[in-house]
Order: sequence, then C-alpha cells, then structure tokens
Amino acid sequence: MNKTNIVLSGLLVASLSTFAMGDALVKKAKNAGMKPIPSSQLELLKLIEDPKNPITDAKVTLGKRLFFEPRLSKSGLISCNTCHNLGMGGVDGVAAAVGHKWTANPAHLNSPTVYNAVFNSSQFWDGRDPHLEAQAQGPMQAGPEMAAPKSLVEGRINSMPAYVAEFKATYGDDVKISFELITATIGLFERTLVTSSRFDQFMEGDSNALNKKEKTGLKVFIDKGCTSCHNGVGIGGTMQPFQVANKYKFASLGGFQGDKNGMVKTPTLRNIEETAPYFHNGAIWSLSDAVKEMGSTQLGIKISDKEAKQISCFLKSLTGDKGDISYPQLPVITNKTPKPDMN
Amino acid sequence: MNKTNIVLSGLLVASLSTFAMGDALVKKAKNAGMKPIPSSQLELLKLIEDPKNPITDAKVTLGKRLFFEPRLSKSGLISCNTCHNLGMGGVDGVAAAVGHKWTANPAHLNSPTVYNAVFNSSQFWDGRDPHLEAQAQGPMQAGPEMAAPKSLVEGRINSMPAYVAEFKATYGDDVKISFELITATIGLFERTLVTSSRFDQFMEGDSNALNKKEKTGLKVFIDKGCTSCHNGVGIGGTMQPFQVANKYKFASLGGFQGDKNGMVKTPTLRNIEETAPYFHNGAIWSLSDAVKEMGSTQLGIKISDKEAKQISCFLKSLTGDKGDISYPQLPVITNKTPKPDMN
Repeated sequence: MNKTNIVLSGLLVASLSTFAMGDALVKKAKNAGMKPIPSSQLELLKLIEDPKNPITDAKVTLGKRLFFEPRLSKSGLISCNTCHNLGMGGVDGVAAAVGHKWTANPAHLNSPTVYNAVFNSSQFWDGRDPHLEAQAQGPMQAGPEMAAPKSLVEGRINSMPAYVAEFKATYGDDVKISFELITATIGLFERTLVTSSRFDQFMEGDSNALNKKEKTGLKVFIDKGCTSCHNGVGIGGTMQPFQVANKYKFASLGGFQGDKNGMVKTPTLRNIEETAPYFHNGAIWSLSDAVKEMGSTQLGIKISDKEAKQISCFLKSLTGDKGDISYPQLPVITNKTPKPDMN
Repeated sequence: MNKTNIVLSGLLVASLSTFAMGDALVKKAKNAGMKPIPSSQLELLKLIEDPKNPITDAKVTLGKRLFFEPRLSKSGLISCNTCHNLGMGGVDGVAAAVGHKWTANPAHLNSPTVYNAVFNSSQFWDGRDPHLEAQAQGPMQAGPEMAAPKSLVEGRINSMPAYVAEFKATYGDDVKISFELITATIGLFERTLVTSSRFDQFMEGDSNALNKKEKTGLKVFIDKGCTSCHNGVGIGGTMQPFQVANKYKFASLGGFQGDKNGMVKTPTLRNIEETAPYFHNGAIWSLSDAVKEMGSTQLGIKISDKEAKQISCFLKSLTGDKGDISYPQLPVITNKTPKPDMN
C-alpha cells in the first residue's frame, strides 16, 4: 500500500466513522422530538401553508411590501420590520420593544423573532393568538407599538392607488381592502420566513453538515433535557410551564408571569445567535449565560460553563439562510392619505 | 395611395412632428440649464465619484449595510434608512424628522432625500457640508437624531467580527475602523443612489419618453422661470436666495431662515412626487400647491391652478428607477458590543 492509499484509506475510515456517529445522533435527535425544516418544497408547504388561504407569489410580494410599510403606524415611522428586522434575525436587538412615542413595551416584553414563527403552535409570549394572521393585528393597533386604529390603517392603504391596484391584482377586482385582509396578507408573507440551516442538512442525512464540536453540542443539548421544550421543527414554539424549577430571577421585570395557566411560549432556537437579548424580558445578553439560566430555571440542573459553551456551539448551527430579500418600493401617497400623527 | 399607406404616412408625420417638438424642447431645456443623468456609466462615474476615493463594489456593499444599520444609533433602533427610506423616495414622509427619544428636529426641518443627493453642490438645508461623506457624520451624532457619539459608533462596529472582516477585505488588513471611515463608507454608498428617469431618456434624444402633457408641463416649467433655481443634473441642489419675492409664509415654523447669507439649498426635484411633504419645514403636502407657493415666494409670480397641474405632470416624469435594492443581513453582536441605550 503506497502513501496515497494509506491517506485515502484513513480518510475513508474517518468519513465512515463520522457518518456512523452522525447517523446515531440523528436518530437520537429525532427520538428527542427534533425535526428538520424539510428540503422538499412540497413537504415544507404542507407545514407552513393555511389550506384555506393558499400561498401565491402575488400575496407574498404584497405582504412583504406591507411588512416594510411604516405608514401602517400612526406616526408613519414604524413598520413591522422596525421590531422584527429581517436583517437582524427578525428582531430589534433591544431588551423591551420600543414603539409609538418611544414607549417601551408596558410589560417589558422582548420582540420575538418573526423568522420561523410559522412553526410556533401559537403566537405572543402568552400564546394568545393562534396564527400569524391574527398576531399581525395586535402590534399594529397597540398604543405602545404602532398605535394605528383599524380605520387609519384602512384609510392609508385605500388612499394609495398603487396599493388598491395591487390588492385587486392579488385578490380580484371586487376585493374589500379591510384591516383584516391587510394583516392577513402580512401574516401570509411571514409564513414564508423560514430559514434552513446546517442542522437541517444534518438531520436529512448530510453527516458532514455539522462539525465535531457542533455534534458534541447537540448531544449535550439532548442529554441535558433541553429538547423537553425545544423540539419540533421550530426547536421550540410550544406553550410550556414557566419557572418550573425555580422562580425566574428576572420575572419581576415587567411582571410577566405567563398566561393564565402559568405557561409561556418557548422561543424557537433557530437563529438564536442573532436574537439577543434573550427571554421574555430580554434580561440576558450572552447565549451561554442564557443556556445556564434555563438549566437552573426550567430544568432544575446546573449546566457547567463548558457544557453551556458546547450547547451554544451547536445552537449557532441553527443560524439559517435568509435568502435574498429585495427591499420593496412603497406606493406614493395622495391628498386623501391620512397624515402622520406623532402624538 | 391605399388606406394603409395613408395611415402609415399620417403616423410618420406625427412621429416627425413629435420628434421636432421634442428636439426643440430639449434645446430649450438645455439652454435653461437642465441636464440629464447620463446613460453612459463612464460619464456618470465622472459626476458622482470622488477621484480620491474610487467607488468599488466592496465599498458600496459595506456602505449599504451600514446605511441600514440601526446599531449606529444610541438606541440601536434608528438607521440612516429610518429618515431616508430607500423604499419611499429616500425620505421619511413626515414634516419634521423624528429621532432619538421621539424628538422632532429642533428647527422643524424636513429630511431631504438621499436619492441624487450626490448632485447637490453642498449638503443640508443650509448647505453647511460640502459632500455626503461629511454629511453622514451629522445626524449620527446629533442628539435629536441618532444621538451616537463617535466612540459609541466605533465601539459598536469594531465589536462585531463580521464588520471588522468586511472592513479589512474592503480597505486592507491594516485598516483603522474610525468614525470617519464608517461615515465616509456610507457617503460613498449614497453617491451611487442615482435614479434615472424618463426625463433623462428624453434629454438624451428619445422624444417619446415624455408624453404630450409632460412636454407641455416642461415648457411651462421653463417659461415660468423654475429653472432659475431648479437646474443642473439634480434639477436643483444649489444654494439660492431664500424668500426672494415674499416672506415665506411658513418661515416662522421652526424659525429656519437659511444660512448666514439668507441662502437655502434648493431641493432636487427628482422623485419629487414621492417626497411629500415639501419645503424645509414640510409645510405643504400637495405638489401643485408647492409649485404655486414657489411661484409666489421665490419668483414673485402667480402660477395658476392649470399651470401648476401642468408643471406637476412634468415633475412626475422625474420619478426615477431605484434599481433592485437587496436588503442586507447585519452582523451578530458579541459580549463586547456596547448595549442599546434608550435614554
């Protein structure tokens, strides 16, 4: 056997062994309830589409335009993208959301990411809305967020001929451009904000998609019990008991105590490295610290610095591809368009 | 001569006559000082580039990322694009700019468009800065705008490895990422925000690029004397005497009285239909009303409703192509990144 053969043979063994390790780990992850975003567009569509409202290119294009539309707010300055910035992991990067008149969220709640929110079983930290179409109605009307009454939103959009034409082209000439249709169109666009990552390639059989450290991190993640809440396609997104093991040390900030049953919406861990600060109140900025805090608060265990680093290393493999987002041009106002109001 | 020949002959005459009209009107417009954005990329580059700082793809890409970067502001919420929205004609659509802590511009000044600002002889309403690289330093530091001291801007950018790597790839490994380099890179990106329109095609010889009404409007525009200030490639952009004919009726709003010599930066009329409300104080929302106001205030003439409509019709042909703007992904923060500060 010459030198080249030895090297090749060594590579082959290494490759097979990595594959075997990958294969067993995929099984372990699946048994723990973790699921990939399917690479099959057909399979993905089944997961993200509301069959009563099929996804079309026209709806997505219009929904994206509305998502970036600051004139949906009372001031004309705040769009969905202000707090759910598509260039920043779908969040604003501040502890508590800031809205109309520079008002911080009254419950000191952190803006959750809009990316992969379609995989959440319900929306908002207290899970009060069943889907994205309903969710989009909330912040637009909320006084400390976009502060726009339904009639103002409808008045603005209906006053701009280019929007009216686009709604007609999208939904038919007899369309009524209601607040509900405007927000539902945004919700539909948000359903498409899905970010596949190396983790998904790994789960679908590409053993080399994760490196050795990331695989170790994934194992620790599962072994520590993180998957008891962070599972499914969203690696999170379901309602779970809040402060299971210990009173959460930041709970006093803003006073959020979960829903009426003491449950909280588990955040997705996809793109988690991009969405600091963490938790409902944005109290922790470091990913490793957040991991340790969850061990203590939710699992009642101590996660060591080393383990937290290992888990964080895996979590970064969940940072996904955002695709090419083309920034939309927004229609021109007319004399009928309700004016911005800063008060 | 058969029927077809008569029709063709008629079309030929109409076409020749339109061309002749177009040709004479182009001469008239050129004599009045109006200039097209050249379709030749080489000619355009001569107009927009600072020879001491050549435009490269890498600088433009980095500059665009920084233009959309809210973490250049103290709060982490306000980017250049907040007030100079590239989807809204390069402006915010409100009378007076609103910045940090929801503070309106103290002089009640309206955000000028960033599109074609490279053609301005100087920047800001009082023309105090000579170019875009200097201009970009102002709002970032101003308390009522982005409110970020130089050290904070430098601290944020230097704390993010992806930015450091991109600056090195753009400017060389020994680059010092200073406030001045950050703002100069934004300024360079802004130099490329040039929007060619049908008016430019017309000026370069395509007589059919403007329709009959627009050509009439252009003639009225010139005949009324609008080109005495609105000329050059920017169709505006130079310092001109303020309130020449009459005390400007909105001048009391905010108290802006021009620069120390009573001069004001004439806004570009490119994309003017997208940049309401108008004037340094955003006092007028209707384009036709703005045209009439300028007749009265600057030219000392009465522009009739009909003439104002004709001129407005022409002005809309200055709405230019914004190209495809891909929305940038922004780097991930680290534990060293200075935190957002809402106060």
